[in-house]
Amino acid sequence: MTSLLIRNGTIVTDAMEFNADVYCEDGRIVAVEKGLDAPVGCEVVDAQGCYVMPGGVDPHTHMQLPFMGTVASEDFYTGTAAALAGGTTMIIDFVIPNPGERLLDAYQKWRGWAEKACADYSFHVAVTWWDDSVREDMGTLVREHGVNSFKHFMAYKGAIMADDGVLTQSFPRALELGALPTVHAENGELVDYLQKLLLSKGITGPEGHPQSRPPKVEGEAANRVIQIAGILGVPVYLVHNSASDSVDAIERAKRAGQRVFGECLAQHLVIDASVYYDKDWNRAAAYVMSPPFRAKEHQESLWKALSGGVLQTTATDHCCFCDDQKEAGRDNFARIPNGTSGVEDRMAVLWHHGVNMGRLTRTEFVALTSTNAARIFNVYPRKGAVQVGADADIVVWDPKAVRRISVETHHQNIDFNVFEGMEVTGGPAYTVSRGKVAFERGELRAERGAGRYIDRPPRAPYFGAQELYNAKHPLRSVSRPPAKEASSA
Amino acid sequence: MTSLLIRNGTIVTDAMEFNADVYCEDGRIVAVEKGLDAPVGCEVVDAQGCYVMPGGVDPHTHMQLPFMGTVASEDFYTGTAAALAGGTTMIIDFVIPNPGERLLDAYQKWRGWAEKACADYSFHVAVTWWDDSVREDMGTLVREHGVNSFKHFMAYKGAIMADDGVLTQSFPRALELGALPTVHAENGELVDYLQKLLLSKGITGPEGHPQSRPPKVEGEAANRVIQIAGILGVPVYLVHNSASDSVDAIERAKRAGQRVFGECLAQHLVIDASVYYDKDWNRAAAYVMSPPFRAKEHQESLWKALSGGVLQTTATDHCCFCDDQKEAGRDNFARIPNGTSGVEDRMAVLWHHGVNMGRLTRTEFVALTSTNAARIFNVYPRKGAVQVGADADIVVWDPKAVRRISVETHHQNIDFNVFEGMEVTGGPAYTVSRGKVAFERGELRAERGAGRYIDRPPRAPYFGAQELYNAKHPLRSVSRPPAKEASSA
Amino acid sequence: MTSLLIRNGTIVTDAMEFNADVYCEDGRIVAVEKGLDAPVGCEVVDAQGCYVMPGGVDPHTHMQLPFMGTVASEDFYTGTAAALAGGTTMIIDFVIPNPGERLLDAYQKWRGWAEKACADYSFHVAVTWWDDSVREDMGTLVREHGVNSFKHFMAYKGAIMADDGVLTQSFPRALELGALPTVHAENGELVDYLQKLLLSKGITGPEGHPQSRPPKVEGEAANRVIQIAGILGVPVYLVHNSASDSVDAIERAKRAGQRVFGECLAQHLVIDASVYYDKDWNRAAAYVMSPPFRAKEHQESLWKALSGGVLQTTATDHCCFCDDQKEAGRDNFARIPNGTSGVEDRMAVLWHHGVNMGRLTRTEFVALTSTNAARIFNVYPRKGAVQVGADADIVVWDPKAVRRISVETHHQNIDFNVFEGMEVTGGPAYTVSRGKVAFERGELRAERGAGRYIDRPPRAPYFGAQELYNAKHPLRSVSRPPAKEASSA
Amino acid sequence: MTSLLIRNGTIVTDAMEFNADVYCEDGRIVAVEKGLDAPVGCEVVDAQGCYVMPGGVDPHTHMQLPFMGTVASEDFYTGTAAALAGGTTMIIDFVIPNPGERLLDAYQKWRGWAEKACADYSFHVAVTWWDDSVREDMGTLVREHGVNSFKHFMAYKGAIMADDGVLTQSFPRALELGALPTVHAENGELVDYLQKLLLSKGITGPEGHPQSRPPKVEGEAANRVIQIAGILGVPVYLVHNSASDSVDAIERAKRAGQRVFGECLAQHLVIDASVYYDKDWNRAAAYVMSPPFRAKEHQESLWKALSGGVLQTTATDHCCFCDDQKEAGRDNFARIPNGTSGVEDRMAVLWHHGVNMGRLTRTEFVALTSTNAARIFNVYPRKGAVQVGADADIVVWDPKAVRRISVETHHQNIDFNVFEGMEVTGGPAYTVSRGKVAFERGELRAERGAGRYIDRPPRAPYFGAQELYNAKHPLRSVSRPPAKEASSA
Repeated sequence: MTSLLIRNGTIVTDAMEFNADVYCEDGRIVAVEKGLDAPVGCEVVDAQGCYVMPGGVDPHTHMQLPFMGTVASEDFYTGTAAALAGGTTMIIDFVIPNPGERLLDAYQKWRGWAEKACADYSFHVAVTWWDDSVREDMGTLVREHGVNSFKHFMAYKGAIMADDGVLTQSFPRALELGALPTVHAENGELVDYLQKLLLSKGITGPEGHPQSRPPKVEGEAANRVIQIAGILGVPVYLVHNSASDSVDAIERAKRAGQRVFGECLAQHLVIDASVYYDKDWNRAAAYVMSPPFRAKEHQESLWKALSGGVLQTTATDHCCFCDDQKEAGRDNFARIPNGTSGVEDRMAVLWHHGVNMGRLTRTEFVALTSTNAARIFNVYPRKGAVQVGADADIVVWDPKAVRRISVETHHQNIDFNVFEGMEVTGGPAYTVSRGKVAFERGELRAERGAGRYIDRPPRAPYFGAQELYNAKHPLRSVSRPPAKEASSA
Repeated sequence: MTSLLIRNGTIVTDAMEFNADVYCEDGRIVAVEKGLDAPVGCEVVDAQGCYVMPGGVDPHTHMQLPFMGTVASEDFYTGTAAALAGGTTMIIDFVIPNPGERLLDAYQKWRGWAEKACADYSFHVAVTWWDDSVREDMGTLVREHGVNSFKHFMAYKGAIMADDGVLTQSFPRALELGALPTVHAENGELVDYLQKLLLSKGITGPEGHPQSRPPKVEGEAANRVIQIAGILGVPVYLVHNSASDSVDAIERAKRAGQRVFGECLAQHLVIDASVYYDKDWNRAAAYVMSPPFRAKEHQESLWKALSGGVLQTTATDHCCFCDDQKEAGRDNFARIPNGTSGVEDRMAVLWHHGVNMGRLTRTEFVALTSTNAARIFNVYPRKGAVQVGADADIVVWDPKAVRRISVETHHQNIDFNVFEGMEVTGGPAYTVSRGKVAFERGELRAERGAGRYIDRPPRAPYFGAQELYNAKHPLRSVSRPPAKEASSA
Repeated sequence: MTSLLIRNGTIVTDAMEFNADVYCEDGRIVAVEKGLDAPVGCEVVDAQGCYVMPGGVDPHTHMQLPFMGTVASEDFYTGTAAALAGGTTMIIDFVIPNPGERLLDAYQKWRGWAEKACADYSFHVAVTWWDDSVREDMGTLVREHGVNSFKHFMAYKGAIMADDGVLTQSFPRALELGALPTVHAENGELVDYLQKLLLSKGITGPEGHPQSRPPKVEGEAANRVIQIAGILGVPVYLVHNSASDSVDAIERAKRAGQRVFGECLAQHLVIDASVYYDKDWNRAAAYVMSPPFRAKEHQESLWKALSGGVLQTTATDHCCFCDDQKEAGRDNFARIPNGTSGVEDRMAVLWHHGVNMGRLTRTEFVALTSTNAARIFNVYPRKGAVQVGADADIVVWDPKAVRRISVETHHQNIDFNVFEGMEVTGGPAYTVSRGKVAFERGELRAERGAGRYIDRPPRAPYFGAQELYNAKHPLRSVSRPPAKEASSA
Repeated sequence: MTSLLIRNGTIVTDAMEFNADVYCEDGRIVAVEKGLDAPVGCEVVDAQGCYVMPGGVDPHTHMQLPFMGTVASEDFYTGTAAALAGGTTMIIDFVIPNPGERLLDAYQKWRGWAEKACADYSFHVAVTWWDDSVREDMGTLVREHGVNSFKHFMAYKGAIMADDGVLTQSFPRALELGALPTVHAENGELVDYLQKLLLSKGITGPEGHPQSRPPKVEGEAANRVIQIAGILGVPVYLVHNSASDSVDAIERAKRAGQRVFGECLAQHLVIDASVYYDKDWNRAAAYVMSPPFRAKEHQESLWKALSGGVLQTTATDHCCFCDDQKEAGRDNFARIPNGTSGVEDRMAVLWHHGVNMGRLTRTEFVALTSTNAARIFNVYPRKGAVQVGADADIVVWDPKAVRRISVETHHQNIDFNVFEGMEVTGGPAYTVSRGKVAFERGELRAERGAGRYIDRPPRAPYFGAQELYNAKHPLRSVSRPPAKEASSA
């Protein structure tokens, strides 16, 4: 039996702060009280001056993803180790079947790849095509394999793009299974047109990347998918919102009473589009990801959306490609593998630019880095909470720790860091995964294969309300007097 | 030589009111002054107590349209006669090629059909498919045939729908020709899905029509096409906005500096969705048009959009199908031919519910029924103006005339009137077409074949600004510092 | 020692649902676990089939308020008893000094009145005038008397109205004390003008009440106070938002990153303005409260604001005046004492029209009726939580209980019920106050004087972020480049 | 008899462009036709390659204004001369009575001062206080003195500020007279508070000016006055909108169907707040005006508001104070006389940054610099038009003329130019005032005293609609079913 006592810290949850010790046994939290004594043989962590918070949940990573003719350099082992070094104790990665590939087959493949993970993980499964087998596999995945979310790419025409026809099949199916549709919102048709247009004009360098994916391309798709979900009465989650355009679309929908969730990436909060105009091709290419970095004003919009409740989660879309991989697009920006690192730095970036700048409270920080993702993807309070019964996934956060982010010192398996040189105050003193200290003041003790696949049950709490609402508002937007309500005064 | 003197009236244009007489010769206005004398042989109209305004321009009609397996009952002769009876002196109808059909061939066919028109007319040409011949014919139509606008249907999947791929081809082509893309905005994929869903649930009656085309279906498509136009740097015109959703999309774009024009129909301003729940199938079916009538709150939104400048034009989408034609959808609402009448009643409805209710000034009425359409489609001041040199298309409006709209008395070739029973105050005392009195206090003197095809030149004034803007803002929404401006303080 | 065990229920908090028993001793929760055994002498409540939730917190009541020449009929004893009968275990009432009266004196007066309360209570203190003594008393109240919120009335000109000059003094003072300014937002100058205008036109009946306080009067004041708070860098809480106008103002501010909180009343969610046109003067007058009930479309806006996160709390503004008191305004609507009941019915109305209609999840219900108020007013998790260490203020909610709301059966000391005749499904089976069963399936066992004054500490968690933000953004809206941030990539 | 022929130009109005000559006699336009012959003795202007447009109307100037302890250096002679040099042929200045001063007395004083003007002029009259004499004088001014607009300052507390009480008196009075209320929207209470706060912190320099008047101070007041006008059913005109905050308030109101007009200044379109941080006190102080210059993003918002129809007019608030006058605020920014020049440069700045950048069409330029102001203030088509019967106030605009704006060369009587060094392409070749060439390719021939006072009749066209609307919507925002409309289908 492993046991661990975290003493003298201030516990911060998404709702409150209080002083208490935390005692863990066999990977779970078994006591949260003041003045706990350490049993014999119990490891003790002194959290004096630190905040004891739920370990981070990064709901958007792509470890060892086969993509654009290569495979992401970060695998499930190195990637989850880097996550732990940054205070993140769970990732939700993506199974992405090729069009035509059975969802179950792809799922099994990814499960195999992930066995070496050091931290807990789970999988969204992408719907990249449609036929009856997809419908059937969605059911099997939800009922038998702990999947409760399905991903849809509105971009990547000719590859994994899901058009409106696929969305209208998949969304109602997800709803009946109690699974949440998630969406990468960019208009793939327009991206394709603009890429060709730019290339035809001789624009082949990395600057063509943001030019072919302007904010409206994202805002349009976000608005479209939200309207589709609204008409179909399905909750929906939009990944990596990078532009005020998509944030505005989410806000309009929330204001109209629709259940929409939105995520943004740590990278988009602090990096702007000027990086694509770096004279050094390799540096510029290193920042190529979709959606691209934006003009500075979009950053402020994202921060306000986080503090104002329009966006609920932060992630990284961690997907690493090294210099030699990025080279594939040397003559054509459209062939540069899309992706950047981030899983190790997300929490520090959020703390430094969020909490230290007064944009976020500490409780909001916990909600935005951990608890909200756990709730939306229905693993709360197993994850995202510091309370009796929860998994002992904990970060002991030192608000005074200073670190200069650099590729020289990071644990991520990539030869570039998009935050290079940023000095952040606040970071993990200890990261505890399943009750064991996996990271301690700079020293990484991650254990290959120690991570477990986390089943996520269907029908998160908001599904009940959605179904009642749908029942009371059939075809909710229809030009018809709504169904009579229960008698009122 | 025909000549006509309109005396003693108050001239109302889109900009001002003043007292003057109007003298016309050979179809043009040759003098606008006080105290004009009538030459010998000149017909004289006494406009005492009346407003002398530019004849109405209805920019959206479908005379004798082959559609959904039948042909609209109103032809160019009867339809333009009815228009004159209501004060409208010009229509812009639509050439709608079948997918695969050469645009030029279709255009010639429609030109032949229209020769019997009593009032002036012109044609938008629809882009219902795409290949190089379409591109070529667009050029020919603009350069040689007086076409300066092209229509796109985002609905009617499997028939004339233009998907995003067609739009991204057609819009830049229109821009380079100086022609305006116009759009019917409804998400055809969703309509198709909802129609099938409703039918599968046994909903086959006319109430299925609005249920399969909820406001979000229109709002989504409106937002999408506006974003596409915005990215491509093309002005765009949205026909028949019926819902606050699409009005909001237009408003957002205008607020963001985009050149977007919006139209609404007289019918949507005063008729609501309850008509589809009429117990009498024939009555309910008679109101089937797309977009459908909406819940009442949308009407107020449209009125405010007209007075607030968000929408610029009013039209009718006049497309008549009689009872026996509507019967085609007796067992399936999706087969009811879409369309209602309106060309005769538009101006009276706008006056009564707009001017008489204080929603619109008289000058706004002129702008919204005539001048704005003439400007946007670049036939101003030939049409839409009462000034020297303009065509003598004039309506002498009696603000005290009372009429009860009814199928019993209307001139339209259809056995139903969607405004049946509405009493309106204000209507044409005289309608003057090309200098001749075509309607006089209830008596219609329209002359078969007297109407002329009106060439509309390309490059309306706003094209110059759009091109300069595009040049200064390449890929205008791109995440990049905009091009340097001329030096400022 | 009193002890209580609540068995077999499903616990619902603002964040999750789970099955557990709750054991309470001496007014606090001491265990939340499955399968707890009842100690000898312990009272046991069987919660089978019920939800065990934090008792309601009503942050807006006026017991025995001296107002408009009379005193509210409901006193702290009867009012808190009625609250317990409805599942509400804590109220926050208002100390309202007369202009010129020392805040401390008024506070002591109210404390005396409240000693007979059956349930816990606390006080907001109103700033109805300004001089140095007010400034000083604010400090004393916060430091020594457990007050952490101050109320401001923008209406009631000539009485307790705080104009912009008072607001600009009081808000920064509240900020430095760590206390939250709360605001009744109606433009008092306009109300005064409209009242006089209506009376001068002979409109003296209750219908004059809503006509003198149209939605824009509320929306204007809401926007104004939010902008003032924004400029001054102060968080702000708007009470009883009743109109989409004020909700929109809050939403705009939240979207702009401002810390604004909003409340709405159960009454405004389900009652509309038609009540003021009741032929029976007494019935119409019974509904007179400010802000008044609104046109129906505002209700939907409020519901969406609750589910979308724009509004955070629900209250009642419970302030009872009986028929004979309302008579004072028989000839002049402006003299009808403003106020309605609600404290007993709030939770049932929210459950029935919220949860049962699919508008709210059960966790959202808990947040909106209890937890959010506890957090904003900084008594969480003492109140608003079902967890070890919290006060044993609990409601055992029977989702199947059916009740017809009526003045005949309610416990409120007023001769009218604004929800009269409304049948609601879902209500308290048991209400537990400080560990004792105060209400059991229809039987009220409230104990006079059992309630305690709850000290509310200053500096709720969001104050820290606000201060950091202010430090980083001096004069946050100023036209100046913001202060340099910590270095970023 | 003076006569003038303008040949070979392209006439541009707010609605169209066409080639024609313009013949003027005795100060009016008497012919607009192609190929006109010059009578004997007629002066001839060759407009080859130029645009012939209505002379500019600047609806917001302050010549020789007594203000803040000094008098503006530019008087009616020099100011109107400079206006003519820039293509502006009419100004609307302001009569500003001291509180307590009879409006009529002040009016007569200003009329006397203005007799030396070289170009036509008119006066708004400010309502800076209220009693029955103000009410009476408003009537006299409208009925007997050609005044149709009244100004209200929501800023300048302790001086000329009109609080909500004054506004609710003045607005309905203006409505009944058919006169338009105009408003300077800044919250005077907040400005006062912030000025004192900043001074107390030792901020005394020009940077204190923008810091004491942040955008929210303007946005709040704009929203407030619009809501007040909306409730009272009065059209309203907001002067010098400088921030997206106030533009947004106007847009919301227009979208809600309210008749609101908005103006912006040429200066705010191109100058940003960085000028206040100039190391040179005198340079920084020279830019002090209210509202102050803003962060750059507000400029784009203003441009979009102009092209999108949210704002209708451009002006300058021309109010000149020289270095030695600005010195009064050397130790206290709040004492720096507020004002900058602009009347000479407005049109060139609008053309260069508007038309040349593709933001505005030429017709929009005419509307925004001349026609719209003429319409709103009801002197159209006497002013703002190139048509028979109009005053011969014309600018012949050379789109190729290049000028470097500088205090060295300008005609304004001030020792600073806020546009110093800006190179603009496009400017007046000739300015014609009342049929005489007053400026010719750099040479100013303005004649002292040649300008005439222009009576502006009450009840511009929009008043009729407003009154009808008010009649149909008593207390338009009231929570009550609106009055029944004329019967509809």
